[in-house]
Amino acid sequence: MSNTQSNEIEVSLLSSEEIRTRIRASQYDAHTSGLAPGKLQCNLAILPEQYALDFLRFCQRNPKPCPVVGVGDTGNPMLPTLGRDIDIRTDVPRYRVFRNGRFVEEVTDISSLWTDKLVTIALGCSFTFENALIRANIPVRHIEMGRNVPMFRTNIALSSAGPFFGNMVVTMRPLREEQIEKAKVISAKYPQAHGAPIGMGDPSSIGISDLSQPDYGDPVEVKPGEVPVYWACGVTPQNVLRAAKLPLCITHAPGHMLITDVPEDAETTIY
Amino acid sequence: MSNTQSNEIEVSLLSSEEIRTRIRASQYDAHTSGLAPGKLQCNLAILPEQYALDFLRFCQRNPKPCPVVGVGDTGNPMLPTLGRDIDIRTDVPRYRVFRNGRFVEEVTDISSLWTDKLVTIALGCSFTFENALIRANIPVRHIEMGRNVPMFRTNIALSSAGPFFGNMVVTMRPLREEQIEKAKVISAKYPQAHGAPIGMGDPSSIGISDLSQPDYGDPVEVKPGEVPVYWACGVTPQNVLRAAKLPLCITHAPGHMLITDVPEDAETTIY
Repeated sequence: MSNTQSNEIEVSLLSSEEIRTRIRASQYDAHTSGLAPGKLQCNLAILPEQYALDFLRFCQRNPKPCPVVGVGDTGNPMLPTLGRDIDIRTDVPRYRVFRNGRFVEEVTDISSLWTDKLVTIALGCSFTFENALIRANIPVRHIEMGRNVPMFRTNIALSSAGPFFGNMVVTMRPLREEQIEKAKVISAKYPQAHGAPIGMGDPSSIGISDLSQPDYGDPVEVKPGEVPVYWACGVTPQNVLRAAKLPLCITHAPGHMLITDVPEDAETTIY
Repeated sequence: MSNTQSNEIEVSLLSSEEIRTRIRASQYDAHTSGLAPGKLQCNLAILPEQYALDFLRFCQRNPKPCPVVGVGDTGNPMLPTLGRDIDIRTDVPRYRVFRNGRFVEEVTDISSLWTDKLVTIALGCSFTFENALIRANIPVRHIEMGRNVPMFRTNIALSSAGPFFGNMVVTMRPLREEQIEKAKVISAKYPQAHGAPIGMGDPSSIGISDLSQPDYGDPVEVKPGEVPVYWACGVTPQNVLRAAKLPLCITHAPGHMLITDVPEDAETTIY
């Protein structure tokens, strides 16, 4: 496909590699929901090597909110296990830069920030199992409404590692009673995208005071006959990273994920 | 249960914690196959912290042979995510000590070798899916014969990380054609115990010259109408560790695993 042709085609029809090429060329910097269907999308954490071992330990101990799907070599911006020619400095639509736990800026390229001491860690995201739910005719309310998923801080304590600790953040999707078992079975097939729900029902049992007021994202209604179902959320590691007040930490901007070449349903997330 | 009572009972009837107590007290140092049914058993790698990040990267990139199920804090011998009061210095029946890649000794206690710079990494093992196969009435030849599983070096190159590289080692179990699909589905449910087979059939296609001469373990016959089926093997990380010639590395002795309190079929390997 020539560049001229590809520029005429909706980005939603492009392959994962074609989309990354556009992102790298500063031709696309919007959110990635629905793009490159069937390909794994990732949350992103870039941090100095001295914190990487503890962060990997933290993720290993909290695999539901923090499923590691790729780890770069120290100082190397390429991620060959996640796709062809992925350069993490340029191939994500938008990045957020934190210094000492404080948000500094949102950028579309981190080449000027990259050093030979940085390590990239890619984490699974819930886009994967949402696609699988929809394929199984289980509607996902916030997607139907064109909204961001509602996310809530909980009182579920995480297993700590070094400077990394905190409570789990969850997403909520309302389901009818008869859809729940199927949704459980389907999402459990994607352990690298948060897996099965961590709970359902009474929000106060996990420290959520008001389902109509999410801490992040947009509210969605839980209708009569529906049960709120909670999944571990990729905002968890982002909060934990921020609270650890690392001298430098770079994440993706919410919704602006790394699009890999790995099939969503791959047994292992290795390209 | 009093100590007196427990000493009279076959070790095979004891709980995971009771068996570890016996091991710690130097009352048991034999292999762990068949013990504490339903509880996850682990391969073991203990190495200096400076190599732990690369080793975790290596495992993340090669999850089939190297499924990480637990990582200790640096210098801390306790593994709280894998069970109650697990002290890795004393709770494994037999350890092997390697220095600069050379086998030095086999011991039943590593307390005198432990330092505040060591990191424990526990890896899933094939006992888990073998138990599931047997429950599903798929016989496992080497278990029926009371032998160790046959293991073979292959020409399947692993994804490297730092000083860690090499080829995959596989186990072989002969299955009848009609058992294969079921065995695939069952073992795929245990990604933290090597998951689905990595291949089957012609051994020369993965660099095995003679199935009757395994590189490790005991030979088992592939009978007429049977197909040799290959699974990734936990000897892989052991070989890779040895080839990396670390100044110090401690593993379990083959078959003498860490018995955890985590159920084999747990969605996540966190106690």
